[in-house]
Amino acid sequence: MAAQVWSIVVAGGSGQRFGQLKQFALLDGRPVVERAVLACRPSSTGVVLVVPAETTDDYGADVMVEGGATRSESVRRGLSAVPPEADVILVHDAARPLASPALFRSVLEALLDGGADAVIPGLAVSDTIKQVDQNQHVTATLDRNELVIVQTPQGFSADVLRRAHDGCADATDDAALVEALGTPVRVVPGEPGNLKITTPADLRLAEHLLRDGA
Amino acid sequence: MAAQVWSIVVAGGSGQRFGQLKQFALLDGRPVVERAVLACRPSSTGVVLVVPAETTDDYGADVMVEGGATRSESVRRGLSAVPPEADVILVHDAARPLASPALFRSVLEALLDGGADAVIPGLAVSDTIKQVDQNQHVTATLDRNELVIVQTPQGFSADVLRRAHDGCADATDDAALVEALGTPVRVVPGEPGNLKITTPADLRLAEHLLRDGA
Repeated sequence: MAAQVWSIVVAGGSGQRFGQLKQFALLDGRPVVERAVLACRPSSTGVVLVVPAETTDDYGADVMVEGGATRSESVRRGLSAVPPEADVILVHDAARPLASPALFRSVLEALLDGGADAVIPGLAVSDTIKQVDQNQHVTATLDRNELVIVQTPQGFSADVLRRAHDGCADATDDAALVEALGTPVRVVPGEPGNLKITTPADLRLAEHLLRDGA
Repeated sequence: MAAQVWSIVVAGGSGQRFGQLKQFALLDGRPVVERAVLACRPSSTGVVLVVPAETTDDYGADVMVEGGATRSESVRRGLSAVPPEADVILVHDAARPLASPALFRSVLEALLDGGADAVIPGLAVSDTIKQVDQNQHVTATLDRNELVIVQTPQGFSADVLRRAHDGCADATDDAALVEALGTPVRVVPGEPGNLKITTPADLRLAEHLLRDGA
């Protein structure tokens, strides 16, 4: 029997106002969040969308859930709507409308065929990254060969993701909670075009990439 | 008397073939490297351009120098062509044609008025950054509030930069060599549009930003 794969698309929580979120803006005629839900479709048995309270449209998702006060809390609310039969859960940012079907397949393959319990897309870092103190003085130059820029979709064995969220901790991504369990997290190659849209400039860039076919 | 400011624009070294380097490509009708030299002009007494051996054009620079085997070696060759009267030296990537005059001014101000000996532009990190081992397993999730993405122009008191390069060490940027001296390096805000052009997609994006006036 094929594995049950559910996706959670995180589009905002209770602290955020619908109108301020770039993921509800139109990207080439279609809301960013709708494109993010669509991106999950080919790989998913079902899609849970986590949104601010005032949202009325379902953007093509199967289940709608109201978000929490933090990103991690929003994911936990999404998790509670994922059926217990799910084998694998993907968590995807609503602000990443350009993730390709190939990227979803690559994350799933590492989970289902590769035996990993946690898989995230990562991009090599081409810029120099430094650590700074509170006064904006450099404290260290990091070895960029050891760094990756992390994207979504992030994929997990369902029980691992549920355990990671048991503690109700907060983090900038779900993998960090899984890392805290001591579970190995594997990185697969991300996509340069898999932009996170947070500013009007990002939106223009995404429009450009979409039309360019990049 | 006004401070003497010299710029070194690094456009490649002996290991690189002219045709393969994106900095010699045309960006909206003008070579990327020529735009990088022009960007230095308003702030500079003179500009030294470091290039592969086969380069014939001077791209508007005052002095041409053949590059070395590594980036740091190329900077050292550029340094040897900077007059001893220089008070301040800026090092700029030829692959960053879109650095604004305001960014150059801001780096210089921190050096000349702010009393810093080393100043670099840095951008806040909006993505999650993780450390990985050689098998692409995550070893740590870094606190992105403590990280900056480093750009050029990087500015230095001339004697500090010369001392930093005395040891003939290699690093991905000049600030790292200054850090190794124990000299404080100050970060000023970078510019999102100050792209480093390394791929054809970067070139298309830069064209887009240029026409967009962003």
